[in-house]
Amino acid sequence: MAVYTDVPPDALERFVGLYDIGDLRSCKGIAEGTENSNFLLTTDRGRFILTLYERRVREQDLPFFLGLMEHLAAQGIACPTPVHARDGRTLASLESRPAAIVTFLDGLAVQSPRAVHCEALGCALAQLHAAGHSFERYRANALGVRELAPLVATCLPDADRIAGGLALELKTTLETLTKAWPSHLPSGVIHADLFPDNVFFIHDKLSGLIDFYFACNDFWAYDLAICLNAWCFDTNGQLDQQKARVLLHSYQQVRALTRPERMAFGVLAQGAALRFLLTRLYDWLRPANGALVERKDPLEYLRILRFHRNIKSTSEYGLG
Amino acid sequence: MAVYTDVPPDALERFVGLYDIGDLRSCKGIAEGTENSNFLLTTDRGRFILTLYERRVREQDLPFFLGLMEHLAAQGIACPTPVHARDGRTLASLESRPAAIVTFLDGLAVQSPRAVHCEALGCALAQLHAAGHSFERYRANALGVRELAPLVATCLPDADRIAGGLALELKTTLETLTKAWPSHLPSGVIHADLFPDNVFFIHDKLSGLIDFYFACNDFWAYDLAICLNAWCFDTNGQLDQQKARVLLHSYQQVRALTRPERMAFGVLAQGAALRFLLTRLYDWLRPANGALVERKDPLEYLRILRFHRNIKSTSEYGLG
Repeated sequence: MAVYTDVPPDALERFVGLYDIGDLRSCKGIAEGTENSNFLLTTDRGRFILTLYERRVREQDLPFFLGLMEHLAAQGIACPTPVHARDGRTLASLESRPAAIVTFLDGLAVQSPRAVHCEALGCALAQLHAAGHSFERYRANALGVRELAPLVATCLPDADRIAGGLALELKTTLETLTKAWPSHLPSGVIHADLFPDNVFFIHDKLSGLIDFYFACNDFWAYDLAICLNAWCFDTNGQLDQQKARVLLHSYQQVRALTRPERMAFGVLAQGAALRFLLTRLYDWLRPANGALVERKDPLEYLRILRFHRNIKSTSEYGLG
Repeated sequence: MAVYTDVPPDALERFVGLYDIGDLRSCKGIAEGTENSNFLLTTDRGRFILTLYERRVREQDLPFFLGLMEHLAAQGIACPTPVHARDGRTLASLESRPAAIVTFLDGLAVQSPRAVHCEALGCALAQLHAAGHSFERYRANALGVRELAPLVATCLPDADRIAGGLALELKTTLETLTKAWPSHLPSGVIHADLFPDNVFFIHDKLSGLIDFYFACNDFWAYDLAICLNAWCFDTNGQLDQQKARVLLHSYQQVRALTRPERMAFGVLAQGAALRFLLTRLYDWLRPANGALVERKDPLEYLRILRFHRNIKSTSEYGLG
């Protein structure tokens, strides 16, 4: 949750004037998204989100993110879609930062997802994968398992301060997963960060998916594993088998997992756990200054990682 | 700018259900107000602000603040008005904090006020004073000049770190002002914090006044002096005489200052400068953790204080 950049009202009014979205009525910096500054704009025609891209988001990736949102929204996925300025562009500049205006989505994130939410999520995720198939841009996963080595190296010296033996466990896990990682699985665009705070509901009905700033091309089943970790575990690292079954079943109602995907699912889930364990560990060891950023407990993901490592058969996930 | 408390969606939905404001559609934590956590709620009936009271706001003062906003709004002042819950109350509790829902006001704060804004402000301030006259509750000014001694004492040991000789200057100023402070001037409810970020405009037309959490009973002309300091000086401590004339003139179009008010204006302006110098100094020396709070430069108010001390005649403010 953060607002990093203050936008002077004059600059804001000039900026909004570049778009055909009506007359500006209010602007509130909002505590949403950990990477960017977000503002809720109200005009006499509706509500919009203004995003100033900061920090981790690389400017050269923005055409991928904005193009993807526009593509998905055009395919019927409930997600923000970039608004084109009068000159046709969706990417502009404000206060020396790349900036974009996207449509506003109603809905509330759930803090403690229930099975009904996991069911809606599974279906929406499979629809997102299907809709992304025709998107023509490509972005490699900068946080894929093969890309995690530098992050492991950075965290190693301090890891044992967080939990005894963690440094060795990180090293071993990375080596094991790198060897076991599948090379060919059905793949395409994935969201890669579809945590409960990025999914909106109205009365338990899914109303929108947001925050596509980790989206990339990778195995679809890896995206499903990220969701399993984020939605179906309690904070003690215990899997809620009902939620897991419902999530995987509803996903497969839209697209059935192939046999290689099901076989690899435990490894993918470990990789997904390691990725979030590492970024949380990194943020924990180096908290950002100057803005309200909620630090998330890295050990939650260590417990999830260990759970997956101890799984004997994918039937424990509800996969045959 | 801050959001201190995270409200779980379930608790939020239950809370909103206590009010007859429609069906909740979205909730965004907003970076507004330095003292409380604020959320912009959208329901199918409109927009509202949910405030959780934290830190400096004393719970026993809330009936004054909420009652005042309701009173002023009923008198036609463009300010947020508390929404009554179904049980009739305007003050409730959420996440163990006092909480209230108020109406949403359109408009944007100006960063660099021009004379046109000062003119609108003067008129609105005088109207606020007039409308508050019939409000029946009383709240002493906890930051009046006679109440600043403890704050001076707290800041003294570190003051010289901020500016050489500041400790002595603070002590002397407080002594001088305490002696020179008038005892009888026209008084009533004052806003006491009507800075540019608390006044909204739409196309240079004043659309609303917000943040009544310093409101209290004190000299009306003191409130005007606070506004003069906040709206009519540049950051170098130089008065913009045109803005000052326009502000004082437009105020007096609604309520003419009495001769004793005009005579005392320089002292009131020094007191107003000292009050913000001290609270900024306090915040500078003890920055809050855990939330994005913009620290404001205390020295800006030292320069304003010195400006007023060197004034030879109130005619320099444009007062006869």
